[in-house]
Amino acid sequence: MMAGQQFEGRFLGVLGGMGPMASATFMARLTALKRASTEQEHIPAILWSDPRVPGRPEGYAKRGPDPLPWMINGLRCLERAGAKAMVIPCNTAHLWYDDMAAAIGVPILHIVDAVVADLRRQGVNKGPVGIMATETTLKLRLYQRQLEALGYDCLVLDADLHAKYCADPIALVKENRFDEALGPVVDGVNVLKSQGAEAVVLACTELPLALPLAQRADLSVVVSDSIDALALTAIEWYEGRGG
Amino acid sequence: MMAGQQFEGRFLGVLGGMGPMASATFMARLTALKRASTEQEHIPAILWSDPRVPGRPEGYAKRGPDPLPWMINGLRCLERAGAKAMVIPCNTAHLWYDDMAAAIGVPILHIVDAVVADLRRQGVNKGPVGIMATETTLKLRLYQRQLEALGYDCLVLDADLHAKYCADPIALVKENRFDEALGPVVDGVNVLKSQGAEAVVLACTELPLALPLAQRADLSVVVSDSIDALALTAIEWYEGRGG
Repeated sequence: MMAGQQFEGRFLGVLGGMGPMASATFMARLTALKRASTEQEHIPAILWSDPRVPGRPEGYAKRGPDPLPWMINGLRCLERAGAKAMVIPCNTAHLWYDDMAAAIGVPILHIVDAVVADLRRQGVNKGPVGIMATETTLKLRLYQRQLEALGYDCLVLDADLHAKYCADPIALVKENRFDEALGPVVDGVNVLKSQGAEAVVLACTELPLALPLAQRADLSVVVSDSIDALALTAIEWYEGRGG
Repeated sequence: MMAGQQFEGRFLGVLGGMGPMASATFMARLTALKRASTEQEHIPAILWSDPRVPGRPEGYAKRGPDPLPWMINGLRCLERAGAKAMVIPCNTAHLWYDDMAAAIGVPILHIVDAVVADLRRQGVNKGPVGIMATETTLKLRLYQRQLEALGYDCLVLDADLHAKYCADPIALVKENRFDEALGPVVDGVNVLKSQGAEAVVLACTELPLALPLAQRADLSVVVSDSIDALALTAIEWYEGRGG
């Protein structure tokens, strides 16, 4: 046996730092959602948390530095360290999915696929679904293209409501101001629900951080949390049922 | 400039997975406690979360496999990936500190040093300090040796109370049964306080997970959380004020 071979395993690579609280929360949810009666049954994972990656919305619009080389660097470091599949707990980053997938030799479990699986798991197979995300994710139709192809209708907030109920709380979360972000996110969910949404997707990984799990039950609408959805997909991959 | 050089930085290496919720929480607290007005000001970090590392108390007592080769493997992977200093959010693992430090070329920020700094930061400079930890950490006097050398008196629970208020909740946390672990940990803190403790150290990284931050204010005793203490020490190292 080669030195080190005994330590090999089905390591999950997590390209994080975008933002760092979202990827920390991903690691916590990966643990909380995994059935395990001993510590040793949890999933071996490597988190590359480099918050210096330039902002994705600004980069995509060419208003800021290109984040792609930073993301590819992180993925390659994870691959060299032994990761056998990747997840990226940042929705906007998935606008560069094809370039990232082409740069490495292991699969990237796509966050939109994870949310689709989560909607189905929660019994939402069609009908209007509200999407709360960065403006860039919405404008590039990252979710709408796939959900509409599967027969869902997508609802998004009007520009002024989007600014108040998505963009502002995302910025607050990035400043660790979680409590201030809660109210606007709840208001956004309620507006989408009043417009007929059967489910609301928290399609930016900062948004679940503003809306504690305990407070989702009161919303009386299905919430699909893209962090939890990605964690469940990663657990399925690890257990050999997907990916 | 060499390829990749532009991405170099003062990466913190986190040897985690012991358990995985403790290291996920460390990542979250590292983010929450870092002053940052933008995402990009947070600390670049790599988390090696391999929960397959054999149990430390069992390994130290030779009742189970030796965890040391697993921990050294993780540290070496972190060093190869670019970590410039290490933290290990597992107190019992520090019983192997010297062997681990000798195996790599970058410093390991010691969790007991971090707790001492945290006690002083909170104004506790002497007097009786209660220690809640694994039986192994207590028996090997990991905390007592250093705290007593600095003029503190250490209090620990009697064996039967230790089992109820430390060992049981640690096991519950490792099974994700956080709610059930809260009551016993609070009871343990209160017993130590009634015995004269001016501060209680949560000297196993599973214990802070049982005692939410919001509920510590009611305890009317200083709580030193070894996860938060280690995060604050890592932030100081990153900002060039320590390590």
